[in-house]
Amino acid sequence: MDNKAMLMIPGPTPVPEKVLQAMGKHPIGHRSGDFSKIIGEINEGLQWLFQTKNEVLTLCASGTGVVEAGIINFLSAGDKVLVGSNGKFGDRWAQISKAFGLDVQVIQEDWGVPLKPEDFGAALTADTDKAIKAVIVTHSETSSGVLNPVEAINEHVKAHGEAIIIVDAVTSLASYDLKVDELGLDVVASGSQKGFMLPPGMGFVSVSEKAWAAYGNATLPKFYMDLGKYRKSFAKNSTPFTPPVNLYFGLQAALEMMKAEGLENIFARHERQKQACRAAMKALGLPLLAPDDYSSPAVTSVIPGDVVNSEDIRSTMRKQFDIALAGGQDHLKGKIFRIGHLGFVCDRDILTTIASLETTLQILGYEGFAPGSGVSAASQVLR
Amino acid sequence: MDNKAMLMIPGPTPVPEKVLQAMGKHPIGHRSGDFSKIIGEINEGLQWLFQTKNEVLTLCASGTGVVEAGIINFLSAGDKVLVGSNGKFGDRWAQISKAFGLDVQVIQEDWGVPLKPEDFGAALTADTDKAIKAVIVTHSETSSGVLNPVEAINEHVKAHGEAIIIVDAVTSLASYDLKVDELGLDVVASGSQKGFMLPPGMGFVSVSEKAWAAYGNATLPKFYMDLGKYRKSFAKNSTPFTPPVNLYFGLQAALEMMKAEGLENIFARHERQKQACRAAMKALGLPLLAPDDYSSPAVTSVIPGDVVNSEDIRSTMRKQFDIALAGGQDHLKGKIFRIGHLGFVCDRDILTTIASLETTLQILGYEGFAPGSGVSAASQVLR
Repeated sequence: MDNKAMLMIPGPTPVPEKVLQAMGKHPIGHRSGDFSKIIGEINEGLQWLFQTKNEVLTLCASGTGVVEAGIINFLSAGDKVLVGSNGKFGDRWAQISKAFGLDVQVIQEDWGVPLKPEDFGAALTADTDKAIKAVIVTHSETSSGVLNPVEAINEHVKAHGEAIIIVDAVTSLASYDLKVDELGLDVVASGSQKGFMLPPGMGFVSVSEKAWAAYGNATLPKFYMDLGKYRKSFAKNSTPFTPPVNLYFGLQAALEMMKAEGLENIFARHERQKQACRAAMKALGLPLLAPDDYSSPAVTSVIPGDVVNSEDIRSTMRKQFDIALAGGQDHLKGKIFRIGHLGFVCDRDILTTIASLETTLQILGYEGFAPGSGVSAASQVLR
Repeated sequence: MDNKAMLMIPGPTPVPEKVLQAMGKHPIGHRSGDFSKIIGEINEGLQWLFQTKNEVLTLCASGTGVVEAGIINFLSAGDKVLVGSNGKFGDRWAQISKAFGLDVQVIQEDWGVPLKPEDFGAALTADTDKAIKAVIVTHSETSSGVLNPVEAINEHVKAHGEAIIIVDAVTSLASYDLKVDELGLDVVASGSQKGFMLPPGMGFVSVSEKAWAAYGNATLPKFYMDLGKYRKSFAKNSTPFTPPVNLYFGLQAALEMMKAEGLENIFARHERQKQACRAAMKALGLPLLAPDDYSSPAVTSVIPGDVVNSEDIRSTMRKQFDIALAGGQDHLKGKIFRIGHLGFVCDRDILTTIASLETTLQILGYEGFAPGSGVSAASQVLR
């Protein structure tokens, strides 16, 4: 039905009415006192959400742009970096590092297989002359639904002492209890259209004192992405370049909602819905790409295999039930579908999706499950 | 009054209700067929607005980011560039060029003084070994209200033959009849919160075949800003990175409105309102920063001088009449005020602003004009 679409993809995620209404206001001048107050409120809210005392800087850019800023601000051409890659986004950060002339060592795993902390440990321990300047890790790998063990990898980075850790937390921030300051994560980047319950168009990056020290020596060219400029403006509740004013209005409303829900509840909701989703897929006999212990709270990847075609599932879900699921990316195109359960998602949405998926599978002639078993398994988790 | 603000600044500019409502819709998946249709419609609309058959690429970035992309994609470190600078934005493009290691020759004028085409001619004629790879010009210099003679400068670039011309058309596109293809302008950049009648958050850049040839040899590092990626996606009605979905909804509505008005009418409206504004300032005895023959259709800078303080004018206009005027930037801070008449501005807005300004001047004790003379002078132009 026209106008009835339900987003169960890992971004853009559903946006609350309150946030849409806030975004629909007339813009105001971005150099006005009124807007400065909004910036101040947002800065404080983002620090709360990032669990950090570091500045959290806001850029007008997509997630890729913000992670790029998180990389290039702290390095110089030829610097050695260690990049964990087990999916499309890990691959991308390696590509960016290469595009900027860094000396890239990739810690590679197949899509769906978690990065091994010991591989980082080995590379970092072997680096006795401390040539490695940064370790770049994707926390929640959106392309596969793997949650990489960033805490354990970080321990090896801390033991190394010299390197900073740069974390792509695009789909884990605001959905997973990522303790930025407690872990001492140096650079943590995320994007608005994910756990933040906003449309795409802005991104956020927190920067530690250790990373700022690296910034002082970094010579990769930058201007629009120069985080030093954003830091100066942050201190004055301002922005170095024209900010996306209406998204700021939306973020103000979204942060208010998140504060009312509370961090613990937000994380528990994501964990519960993930577990419900995974339990349902198992009951339906549909294999999961990511292992249980390394599964993302944001997205679940399902491999329907030869029994039923993943694109047929997505097509029927969209046409008959007006539910958007994500497909696979790159070599997994046509082989998996991905259920996003990130941001403004309630338990009802999970049951709705699973009930519709059960019916879809029946329509497509897949009979490898007892009707109702998916919904029942999800109920077990949610009740 | 709360909620009653009227924007007469050169960005963000007022946004039509239709556009705000379009932006307030729930986002849809950016990889869906429905969104691809919107991208296709927008691409075609932008080519119409830019008066070009070149691809017009859309980035999630502020105006500065888009102009930066327009510079760094076509050059390599050490390349010689000629940058015209007679205001904050010209200065900024020189800064960006230096930050990326280009060999920058600045053609400088004071703020308020138009760039001289013959200075470009002299530098380009002297460049017999064709070392100059690009000429960077700000068309409408928002900081001063000068409209630089880009057509005449372009003639010298064409005579040179080798260099491409990169035009910051951030506040001239959609307000001035800039004939991109007829003039053969290679790279033309603009931003959403200006003539496009949208909030800030996205920018546009058109690229000629000659510039794409330069792109092939350009080695400055880039990834998020790599326009080659945007070109590939353009051909498929897609985007390389997550686009600001809700701004696309808004742009779709804004382009529809602009097509209904027609290019000629849009340009005539901006010209008429500029003339009305300038006539009023002269009647009020307030000097203008930009000369008549080089005045921007987007913004008029006024120097109230010693008689009455520009910040007092802005403050009273804001507090009593809920009209936002822009102040001066950098060394002109506190010395000028700027009236934006760009984008979604009707003739009524001009009369309103001038009537309020007259009253403001009276409140502040300035008596150097016959009451009503400003409004009357504007009426002469508008009637």
